[in-house]
Amino acid sequence: MDGPALSPPPAADKDIGAWMHALAAELYPICRSLTGAGVRRTLGRVAAEIPLTLHEVPSGTPVLDWAVPKEWTIRGARIETLDGRRLVDLRDHALHVLNYSGPVDAVVSRADLAAHVHTLPQQPDLIPYRTAYYAETWGFCLPHRLWEEMTDPEYRVVIDSTLAPGHLTYGELHIPGETGDDILLSVHVCHPQLANDNLSGLAVATALVKRVLETPGRRLGLRLLLLPATIGAITWLARNAEAAARIRHGLTLSCVGDPGPVHYKHSRRETADIDRAMAHLLRHAGVEHGLLPFSPYGYDERQYCSPGYDLPVGCFMRGVHGTFPEYHTSADNLDFITPAALDQSYRLLAQLLDLLDADVTYVRRDGRGEPQLGRRGLYRQIAGQKEQGRSGGGLDQMAVLWVLNLADGRHSLLDMAERAGLPFATLKAAADACLAADLIIPAGTAG
Amino acid sequence: MDGPALSPPPAADKDIGAWMHALAAELYPICRSLTGAGVRRTLGRVAAEIPLTLHEVPSGTPVLDWAVPKEWTIRGARIETLDGRRLVDLRDHALHVLNYSGPVDAVVSRADLAAHVHTLPQQPDLIPYRTAYYAETWGFCLPHRLWEEMTDPEYRVVIDSTLAPGHLTYGELHIPGETGDDILLSVHVCHPQLANDNLSGLAVATALVKRVLETPGRRLGLRLLLLPATIGAITWLARNAEAAARIRHGLTLSCVGDPGPVHYKHSRRETADIDRAMAHLLRHAGVEHGLLPFSPYGYDERQYCSPGYDLPVGCFMRGVHGTFPEYHTSADNLDFITPAALDQSYRLLAQLLDLLDADVTYVRRDGRGEPQLGRRGLYRQIAGQKEQGRSGGGLDQMAVLWVLNLADGRHSLLDMAERAGLPFATLKAAADACLAADLIIPAGTAG
Amino acid sequence: MDGPALSPPPAADKDIGAWMHALAAELYPICRSLTGAGVRRTLGRVAAEIPLTLHEVPSGTPVLDWAVPKEWTIRGARIETLDGRRLVDLRDHALHVLNYSGPVDAVVSRADLAAHVHTLPQQPDLIPYRTAYYAETWGFCLPHRLWEEMTDPEYRVVIDSTLAPGHLTYGELHIPGETGDDILLSVHVCHPQLANDNLSGLAVATALVKRVLETPGRRLGLRLLLLPATIGAITWLARNAEAAARIRHGLTLSCVGDPGPVHYKHSRRETADIDRAMAHLLRHAGVEHGLLPFSPYGYDERQYCSPGYDLPVGCFMRGVHGTFPEYHTSADNLDFITPAALDQSYRLLAQLLDLLDADVTYVRRDGRGEPQLGRRGLYRQIAGQKEQGRSGGGLDQMAVLWVLNLADGRHSLLDMAERAGLPFATLKAAADACLAADLIIPAGTAG
Repeated sequence: MDGPALSPPPAADKDIGAWMHALAAELYPICRSLTGAGVRRTLGRVAAEIPLTLHEVPSGTPVLDWAVPKEWTIRGARIETLDGRRLVDLRDHALHVLNYSGPVDAVVSRADLAAHVHTLPQQPDLIPYRTAYYAETWGFCLPHRLWEEMTDPEYRVVIDSTLAPGHLTYGELHIPGETGDDILLSVHVCHPQLANDNLSGLAVATALVKRVLETPGRRLGLRLLLLPATIGAITWLARNAEAAARIRHGLTLSCVGDPGPVHYKHSRRETADIDRAMAHLLRHAGVEHGLLPFSPYGYDERQYCSPGYDLPVGCFMRGVHGTFPEYHTSADNLDFITPAALDQSYRLLAQLLDLLDADVTYVRRDGRGEPQLGRRGLYRQIAGQKEQGRSGGGLDQMAVLWVLNLADGRHSLLDMAERAGLPFATLKAAADACLAADLIIPAGTAG
Repeated sequence: MDGPALSPPPAADKDIGAWMHALAAELYPICRSLTGAGVRRTLGRVAAEIPLTLHEVPSGTPVLDWAVPKEWTIRGARIETLDGRRLVDLRDHALHVLNYSGPVDAVVSRADLAAHVHTLPQQPDLIPYRTAYYAETWGFCLPHRLWEEMTDPEYRVVIDSTLAPGHLTYGELHIPGETGDDILLSVHVCHPQLANDNLSGLAVATALVKRVLETPGRRLGLRLLLLPATIGAITWLARNAEAAARIRHGLTLSCVGDPGPVHYKHSRRETADIDRAMAHLLRHAGVEHGLLPFSPYGYDERQYCSPGYDLPVGCFMRGVHGTFPEYHTSADNLDFITPAALDQSYRLLAQLLDLLDADVTYVRRDGRGEPQLGRRGLYRQIAGQKEQGRSGGGLDQMAVLWVLNLADGRHSLLDMAERAGLPFATLKAAADACLAADLIIPAGTAG
Repeated sequence: MDGPALSPPPAADKDIGAWMHALAAELYPICRSLTGAGVRRTLGRVAAEIPLTLHEVPSGTPVLDWAVPKEWTIRGARIETLDGRRLVDLRDHALHVLNYSGPVDAVVSRADLAAHVHTLPQQPDLIPYRTAYYAETWGFCLPHRLWEEMTDPEYRVVIDSTLAPGHLTYGELHIPGETGDDILLSVHVCHPQLANDNLSGLAVATALVKRVLETPGRRLGLRLLLLPATIGAITWLARNAEAAARIRHGLTLSCVGDPGPVHYKHSRRETADIDRAMAHLLRHAGVEHGLLPFSPYGYDERQYCSPGYDLPVGCFMRGVHGTFPEYHTSADNLDFITPAALDQSYRLLAQLLDLLDADVTYVRRDGRGEPQLGRRGLYRQIAGQKEQGRSGGGLDQMAVLWVLNLADGRHSLLDMAERAGLPFATLKAAADACLAADLIIPAGTAG
């Protein structure tokens, strides 16, 4: 994994689902955590695809109410019988060690070990994902069935880890836009050997960035953040007050590869443009989906939506954290995410980025009455039919009328689409035609 | 038709339905268009009933984004077999000629004729209504069944029309009110030999104006506009910026004579007083009705509601354009409209005009506590009954209490009626009693 | 009844239902009216429980649009047969006399008597409650069955009453709070020998005041008014403009002892804090209830909500006036009200007073990002579980997150509870923990 094993994604995004799945598969086995080599390797791999910058922030750096934690290095973890039979081994699965576990090398009674073992009695074949970032302890995660079979009075436990001053690593990429304002995509990358949560998010975000890089000249910039959860977002916010203030729309992405319905959780503002745009797209996309109100529990939207920022950042998911059986278990594996689901997530978000970029407010050059569309080729020639239909150029006649009626400097294209009950793209085409006919101009432009 | 053939409508409006139907019947055969003799004769007939002013605007006059078109004169139109048998003749039906058709006098092959013939294959016995105002072409409209029987290789076609500089004609009448603000009634009058669309609108508007003339002393003025569709409204708006600014409430009227349910399409503002008043009236009137959101397709509300004006103008209809089978066909005839439906439309609109005129905002002389109603004869004498009922004078007790509670300068009578869930007229009677008892005064009046 | 017959209510309110019922029972037989000895005795009895001040306002005193009426003294009322058999006697039931009846001592024909007799033909065994405060007349109220049996040609009628200059009496108690603003509890006390309407209100209000007296240090003051209906509230408002302006929340209490569902009628503002708080409590209390819009008919909220005051005063009831069969009849007796219903009303209102007192708006000390809860003991130690659950201290984890997210100076605790969908008390506990951890401070406090 010293260089990209994958071919770059196609400019045409025909095979993008498979490409994203392959990227996730490549990164899957790595034992990531808040800090350390796992995150660094993961971000390095992404940087081979897109011009990502890796930032390293020293342990102990004060960041808002927090401090950057010590760096965690994990070299191995195992439980053995006293006769040396290895029952649990980190090399088999990165979830086996309690994330951020301190070191241990001891023979302990089964009873003492029990206090350090995490299992899922209701899902006895799965390994749980557990963390103890800010508790000084050690532990193992294993299938409950295995734990029940472990009846020896004593076991040898070894965790070869270091918790020491080092750095927190995060990745950042900024593609400036014309207006100076940005769309934020924020993805947590600290989860070890879980596919949906959140290699799916990483893969989709990487593919979206590639697409934006290939379609320059955008009104809005794009800022990608690949961060360890919570402390990563807090670290970025602490160091980037100015960039944070330029975020006009934002999303956290997580669990976007499973085949279930799409979910969108609103930003704290509930009616921000991102909230309305996402709801609009999902309503018109004809895909099964659910809209969730904001709540202060979830992913890093918690930080962006904290009251001192209150940024318009929602969360795009398929499976909702804590609600699907594979969540935070070894069943969140590469079979759980599918190229088709990744592809659909990617396409919806690509549409969203395009919508936000195109969501301009227009004014009529002269708003009095309707302009004469006929002489501009924007109206059918023989009138009186019941059908409103389309003009010669395939333009939706009603969309043209809506644009001309609502181009008053107070309705964005999304406002118009919502009021007209038409897809955004239909209004956009109508607005482009009106713009070409010099009937409307962007608001704030000198007439 | 050199003078009124009808007796003037009764001051009491007992027979108003029949009167309106007779007026429509008289005007039905005329071949109207955007311009020309047909509209002029139609308006002249109305001017014999009410003091309508006819305005003549020269062709070529710039009006907003448009120019007044050439005047169309139609003297005859026919299709004949080569042996002189007349198959289609304008004298049989004014819809037979494509409205605004240029002249033609030629023998054409059936194949060439086909490009100039408009039929309704799904309604083979009906003549469609088609226009080609701004296309230089000629054409005929005929029943599809007839067209199918026309199998000769060639036909003689004659359209004796002129498209030449002349005038656009529209009718206007203004009855001033006390406040200087006006209610607009706008009716398009350019449709030839169609009864519901829009002789019904013309007849109801004429009857309403007669009624307002007979009940002077109104707070709000009334402005009636009888115009060719679109270009008429645009012409009026271009020449009457000041009068347009005085329109406080407005309606376009169309298709108000068919026996179907009543429809009201909201103004662009959606919650203007006219919108709330109409919805209130219809809710309490117990008539089947539908409320439609604003859309920029329909009648001349499109012009009044264009963003440069954004006037509170809705549209009152029975059948909705484009949705009933008779629409824009020869089946929209005198049998399709009924005196009873015209009568109901008239009564609803008469109520509406009265409501808008009476929709005053009041303030209590002293708003502290309830006034003592008993000593003013506004309250029943023996209290304690469960029934709230009516005071001696038949006054609704609850309505009196609502008026006294909401007379705070911020609630109009309509606001009160809506909040109380009572008909406007009930609140009006209560307010009149409170006014007579000197408990309330109109807001803005010196106490 | 020269002193309190009841032991004082327990500081712990275990037996408060029985205590309130006993207080109502003691006051039940008294013939109260707008003025006079009945009200004075009733208020005197309450003053033995709580430090109530009795105000006496002379007859004829102008109060807003009214004048304080003459004082009514009733010594006896009876209907006898001419041979001296007493058929109706005020000593049997205080409802027998038309309230505020003038004196009479005469032999009258049955026909003449009929005009002065009030019965309930549909409830022939019940005595109605009728008043004639501002009509100079006399009358009796009796069971319809009795009236039908009275077939003598003449009867002797005696009403020994005086209507003469005197005083109107009302009771007032003010417990100041820290902020200077008050919660108003207003109870009408003029109804004779009716239990639910309104001895139940008087008893619950008295118990609530005792509780507030026992739990000092409140942010908001409490003002109790025990008044004759309408004229009492008008008299108080006329004399207390300044105190009225300090009413931040208010309730009228009436009919709070019957076993039916609880009802709350909104204040005129409909969305005042009191309206939202009451709806919140009822929704979370799991008791059957109904929410009613404001209307200008009902109890003294009519005066507090008149447009010159527009105070945020709603009405808390169980049975709604005019809708239950016992209303304003002799069936509104001590069996109709129950200790359990009184107890539930008391508890709901005690919770309401506590909620209003605790409904503070907070701000985060530093609103940027989430604070680190772990090191403050506000977060569970091992993360990753699906359950959000509770921290060690039993604190609701979601409530803590909501408080920290919405502590922006624009959301009160009630706003937070509503948005979080959690009971107010849960948010309050979370806010207390955050306050103790110095994470939030009350808005307006120097940081």
